[in-house]
Amino acid sequence: MGARTYAVIGTGAIGGLYGGRLAAAGFDVAFLGRSDIETLRTDGLAVTSPDGDIDLASVTAESDPAAIGPVDVVLVTIKTTGQTALADLLPPLVGPGTIVVLMQNGFGLEADVARLVPDATVMGGMCFVCATRVAPGRIEHLDYGGVTLGEHTADGRPSGPTPAIGALADDFTTAGIEVAARDDLLAARWQKLVWNMPFNGLSVVLDTGTDVMVGDERLRNAVRSLMDEVAAVSVAHGHPVGDRFTAKMIANTEAMRPYAPSMKLDFEARRPLELAAIYDAPLTMAGELGVPTPGLSLLAAQLHHLDATNRAGS
Amino acid sequence: MGARTYAVIGTGAIGGLYGGRLAAAGFDVAFLGRSDIETLRTDGLAVTSPDGDIDLASVTAESDPAAIGPVDVVLVTIKTTGQTALADLLPPLVGPGTIVVLMQNGFGLEADVARLVPDATVMGGMCFVCATRVAPGRIEHLDYGGVTLGEHTADGRPSGPTPAIGALADDFTTAGIEVAARDDLLAARWQKLVWNMPFNGLSVVLDTGTDVMVGDERLRNAVRSLMDEVAAVSVAHGHPVGDRFTAKMIANTEAMRPYAPSMKLDFEARRPLELAAIYDAPLTMAGELGVPTPGLSLLAAQLHHLDATNRAGS
Repeated sequence: MGARTYAVIGTGAIGGLYGGRLAAAGFDVAFLGRSDIETLRTDGLAVTSPDGDIDLASVTAESDPAAIGPVDVVLVTIKTTGQTALADLLPPLVGPGTIVVLMQNGFGLEADVARLVPDATVMGGMCFVCATRVAPGRIEHLDYGGVTLGEHTADGRPSGPTPAIGALADDFTTAGIEVAARDDLLAARWQKLVWNMPFNGLSVVLDTGTDVMVGDERLRNAVRSLMDEVAAVSVAHGHPVGDRFTAKMIANTEAMRPYAPSMKLDFEARRPLELAAIYDAPLTMAGELGVPTPGLSLLAAQLHHLDATNRAGS
Repeated sequence: MGARTYAVIGTGAIGGLYGGRLAAAGFDVAFLGRSDIETLRTDGLAVTSPDGDIDLASVTAESDPAAIGPVDVVLVTIKTTGQTALADLLPPLVGPGTIVVLMQNGFGLEADVARLVPDATVMGGMCFVCATRVAPGRIEHLDYGGVTLGEHTADGRPSGPTPAIGALADDFTTAGIEVAARDDLLAARWQKLVWNMPFNGLSVVLDTGTDVMVGDERLRNAVRSLMDEVAAVSVAHGHPVGDRFTAKMIANTEAMRPYAPSMKLDFEARRPLELAAIYDAPLTMAGELGVPTPGLSLLAAQLHHLDATNRAGS
C-alpha cells in the first residue's frame, strides 16, 4: 500500500495548516471547500509558521465530495455550526477502512458522525494551536500546533492504542506535525474543553484576548474556576483530565503569544458561535451527572444572548 | 418641634424623586449638588411619576454644605463611587440628633459613614424603584418606589423598631412615599443585593434591560442562580433574606416595565461603576464566611475588566 490519501473538509485555519503540512510532505491531499476553492486551485496555499512556512503553488480543491471520492483519511476541520452538512459531505469520501478525524472543538461529536458513516473508524483530533485564516488560502500559524488523537468507541470506553491511531500518528509525524496518541478520547475531549470553555466564551463577553485574561488576577482566577468546573465534570464522567491539567493550561496560556480565540473572530464576523458543541453538549452531560457548573452555565447563558443579538445585527 | 428639616446630598434620580416628594409635601428640603444646582434654583424640579407628577418652581440648592448647615435628616443619594466625598460633605449637615439615611446600593456602607459622623443616627434606605434623571432637575419615575428603612447598629444586630425609623416613616408616609420599616438593616441590605448583583452586572455585560433578562429562559435561570448565591451568603451571615425572597424578586421584575439599571447607564456614560459597594464588599464578606460564589465572582471579574477598559475609552 502506498502513502495514504487525504481529504480535508474545510479550508480555514485548521484545514489549511494541517492539510498544507501533509500536502507539503508529499501526501495526496484534496481540499473540500466552498468559496475558497478557486483561490486554492489557482494561487495555491501559503502558511506562515514558526515551525516553517509552507508555500504550495497549487492544491487540489473541490466543492463536490463525489469529485474526490473515497480516501484513506478524512480530516474534518469545519466549524461545528455547519455539522449537519457532514451528512452530505462525508459519505462520498468514505470507503472501506477510511479513517475520519474530527479536528473540531466540542463534546459528543464523534458519536454523531459515527452514525453517519458506520463503516469508518472515527477519531477525534484535538488541536492545541493558535492559527488564523487571514485570506483564502492564506493561513497564519502563530503558536503551538500539537494534535491529540483519540479513537471513538461505541461505549465510550478507552480504545487503547489502535492501528488507526498508529497510522495517523505516523503520517502526522512525517509531515512535521507534533502528535500525541491518547487511549481515552473522552478524557482528551474534556482536556480540550478545559481550555475552550473559559477562553472562547470570555473572549467574546469581554472582547479581549488570552493575554489580557491570564494577565489580570481577577480574570485569571475566574478562568481557573471555570476550568475547575470542567475538570469536575470530567471526573464525574469517568474520563478525568488529570490532576495538574488545569494548572498546565493556565501556564501554557501565560507562555502563549496574545491570541484571539476563534469564537471571538466568529463573533466579530457575526457568524454563529459554536455554542452547541462547546457549551450545550458538555453542560447537558454535567446536568445528567449532577455536577454543578454555576460559572459555566452563567457564561453559556451570556453567550447565547450575545450570539442571538449579534446575529440579529442589533 | 416643627416639621423636620432635610438635606439631600445628590441631585440625581433618587435625590430628585424623594427630595422632591418631601419638598412638595411642605418639608424644608435643601439639595446639595454640583453641576445641577443652578438649574434647580432657577428652573426648579420636575418629576414625572405614575404616583403623581411633581412640579416645583424653585428649590433650595447649594454646592457648599456649610451654606445649609445642620438639619434633622440627611438623605445621601450619591453614587458610592463618590463615597469618599462624604468626609467633607456630611459633617457640616449633622447636628445633635441628626438622622443620616444612606439611599444607596451596596454592602457595609453604614459602618463607614457612622465613623464619619459618630453622633448621628445612621440608617439605610433601600429604594426599590425605577427612576432616571433625564436632565438637570428633570426626573422620570417609571415604576415601584418603596423605601425600606433599617437602622445601623455598631454590632450589626437587628435594631428593632427605633424612634428614628418611626420619625422617618412618618415623614415619608406624609410625603406619599411608600415605606417599610425593617428591624434588621443587614437583612434588608442583602435583600437589595439579591436584585442588584444579578441585574446591574448582567445589564452591563449583556448590554440589555431587565425585561430581556427575565424574558429569556436561560438568562432568567442565570439570574436566579446568582440570586441564590446572594441569598446563601445572607444566611451564612445570620441576616437571611427569607425563603421566598428570590422568587418574589424574579416575579417583581417580570411584572416591571422594561428597565435599564443605573449601572448600565453609568457604563454607557463611561462613568465608574459601583463595583466596590455592590460586588467587592459583599463578595469579601462571602469569602470570610466561606460561602462559594462562583457565578457572582465570575460576573464581578467581568465587570472589573469591562469597567476598566470602558473608562480607558478603549
